Amino acid sequence: MDFITILGLFAATLTTIAFLPQLFKIWHSKSAKDVSLEMLIIFCSGVFLWLVYGIYLQALPIIIANLVTLIFNLIILWFKIKYR
Amino acid sequence: MDFITILGLFAATLTTIAFLPQLFKIWHSKSAKDVSLEMLIIFCSGVFLWLVYGIYLQALPIIIANLVTLIFNLIILWFKIKYR
Repeated sequence: MDFITILGLFAATLTTIAFLPQLFKIWHSKSAKDVSLEMLIIFCSGVFLWLVYGIYLQALPIIIANLVTLIFNLIILWFKIKYR
Repeated sequence: MDFITILGLFAATLTTIAFLPQLFKIWHSKSAKDVSLEMLIIFCSGVFLWLVYGIYLQALPIIIANLVTLIFNLIILWFKIKYR
């Protein structure tokens, strides 16, 4: 695997797992007051379109990274609606 | 411009502007208690690597989308450190 592919995979891993600390933070504190609902809705819509883009191009790294990011952010969105 | 390029640009626009409502929310409320510091640090690192990836590939859409996303998230990170 060449350097640029490893760099891209590392970047994709970071921008995907980044949402786990946010998810656990809201889960533990039961508070999401400062998290923007509009951000979550727009971001989930965008990540969903990235997923469609990846499926269309049959690009597995784009599909996996965006599918996992979408799942994490849908859970955060659910927490936001539940805990406000 | 073909459909898949328009889809990708639309996805990139959404996942970039999504952070503006979060930025303005913290700016107005002066509170960022529920926003995860770890998320912001990991996410900014990942977006920075995406930016390097884009520069390496000389891919302007990747460069622009990640540069703007990085700027928005560095401001949110600054607000998080400032307002806690």
